[in-house]
Amino acid sequence: MSGLADQYLIGVDLGGTKIHTALATENGNILAETRILTGTAGGPSYVIGQIAATIGQLQAQAGVPATSIKVVALGSPGPLNTSSGVIQFSPNLHWHDIPIKQLLEEQLSLKVIIDNDANLAALGEYVFGAGKGKENMVYITVSTGVGGGLILGRQLYHGASDGAGEIGHTIVLPDGPLCSCGARGCLEALSSGTAIAREARRLVESGSGKNILNRAGGDPKRISSVVVAAAAASGDPEAVSIIARAARFLGIGVANVINLLNPDMVVLGGGVMEIGELIWQGVRQEVEARTFQSSRTRAQIVPAALGQRSGVLGAIALAMQ
Amino acid sequence: MSGLADQYLIGVDLGGTKIHTALATENGNILAETRILTGTAGGPSYVIGQIAATIGQLQAQAGVPATSIKVVALGSPGPLNTSSGVIQFSPNLHWHDIPIKQLLEEQLSLKVIIDNDANLAALGEYVFGAGKGKENMVYITVSTGVGGGLILGRQLYHGASDGAGEIGHTIVLPDGPLCSCGARGCLEALSSGTAIAREARRLVESGSGKNILNRAGGDPKRISSVVVAAAAASGDPEAVSIIARAARFLGIGVANVINLLNPDMVVLGGGVMEIGELIWQGVRQEVEARTFQSSRTRAQIVPAALGQRSGVLGAIALAMQ
Repeated sequence: MSGLADQYLIGVDLGGTKIHTALATENGNILAETRILTGTAGGPSYVIGQIAATIGQLQAQAGVPATSIKVVALGSPGPLNTSSGVIQFSPNLHWHDIPIKQLLEEQLSLKVIIDNDANLAALGEYVFGAGKGKENMVYITVSTGVGGGLILGRQLYHGASDGAGEIGHTIVLPDGPLCSCGARGCLEALSSGTAIAREARRLVESGSGKNILNRAGGDPKRISSVVVAAAAASGDPEAVSIIARAARFLGIGVANVINLLNPDMVVLGGGVMEIGELIWQGVRQEVEARTFQSSRTRAQIVPAALGQRSGVLGAIALAMQ
Repeated sequence: MSGLADQYLIGVDLGGTKIHTALATENGNILAETRILTGTAGGPSYVIGQIAATIGQLQAQAGVPATSIKVVALGSPGPLNTSSGVIQFSPNLHWHDIPIKQLLEEQLSLKVIIDNDANLAALGEYVFGAGKGKENMVYITVSTGVGGGLILGRQLYHGASDGAGEIGHTIVLPDGPLCSCGARGCLEALSSGTAIAREARRLVESGSGKNILNRAGGDPKRISSVVVAAAAASGDPEAVSIIARAARFLGIGVANVINLLNPDMVVLGGGVMEIGELIWQGVRQEVEARTFQSSRTRAQIVPAALGQRSGVLGAIALAMQ
């Protein structure tokens, strides 16, 4: 028993493609960090084995005994229950009702806590990234889908049943395109990378979009938001128009959270934001036109600072609490 | 100095038309209550005189000396600063930058606190009305305009600069009708009583809407949401269609707050909700179609319980804090 005996934290960002794991001191200094491919095909027990093995490797790397780990915090996509620690549904992992907290605790003999991946990315940006010290911060990530997390009153806001922050599924165009969630006109169906690629393919199928198609090697299936962004950057007006439309609806979604939540800051991350000024300008224009001045002038709109590390750093931030 | 010396609270709901004032015990029992017409034409000093005189009358009525009043809580429309106690702008009162807290404190020699009227109506429903004991509650009032207030984590949520809760100015139809705020397609521009009347007048101007026009005595200027609701209740398909459209967009607005905030309850008040089943059914349909099941099943959607008293009771609830 020594007063000097340090305690350490583990953060895990479990995604459908990659598992990102970090080991940190109690005050959040990262000592070791690793990223591996998710063995989705192996099913839950295989993936849980991967997580456990990775944690063991990080401990060895940092010279930290298992008994010094205070808590393992894990972020996962999909609806989940933070109290019971059950992942209700994870489309990317093809998981249904997996009691991951219990399974991991049994395997590791360590305390495990879980939260939604977008929530943890928001928490990561709040504790370590762009939103440091902001009382009320909205985080939005725009990539394959559109996710979000809310820091309200300096705390992660979960809502009544861990469902809060689904800004990607707020409606910005009532009769708009069908979303993967089953509704029409969700922000995700209009501004995600998937939506940008879909609009470009639709254009190509209608006989236009030659420049975009050329950049995809003539194969419509290879049209992605990255391809459209490259065409737009080269000045292709059709590609510019597709990106501008996505930006417009993202701006409407941002305007809506500004008028509803009057945040100190809106942090925008994800691959689509890296398209650059065309996206950011569209967002700013809609916010300018559609928000109350007092709320608009208060809300800084800034890029996420942590990139792909937001999730794992958010898990460390959760473990620190 | 007696331990039995009771303290009392004053709540004021200051509107463009009426001033509603109540005197209550420290635990919120209303002892006296009154409503008078706002003397808007007299300007701020006249209205402040009205408030002071009314408070004096209630004290006399209840036999409570001025020295026993702990605090006066006042709700007002328009952007205001709860810290400085300044009403920045009140369109109905035609006020700009009125330091009402300071002016009332000087006149009354009592402590005065202020908040937004829709916030206080939300707080009223949370403490005394439909939302009792709910951790996360969204309040929406649909009448001339559409206002809102958020109870998050059992507390009134103000946002960064007292601007939160403006659900009436979230966009539900990007190219929709112009709103009084200057933006297009705000919920208020589609679902308020004003919007319902506007759509009916437009119909009449186009040569249709005979039933609605008849009910307005043949004068398009007399078409109101009440007239349209009466026509709809009688089965007039044009009126039904106008109300159903307003209900549809209200449902989209409600769906958006359910997906974003995952509340335990959404409380809907204001005159438009009293149109009845046609409005409520439209709201429920959109929520059913456009929200995640886990958030939808958690969120009770209920009518406000306090009617026109929500504001003054909310002011009492604020004074109790």
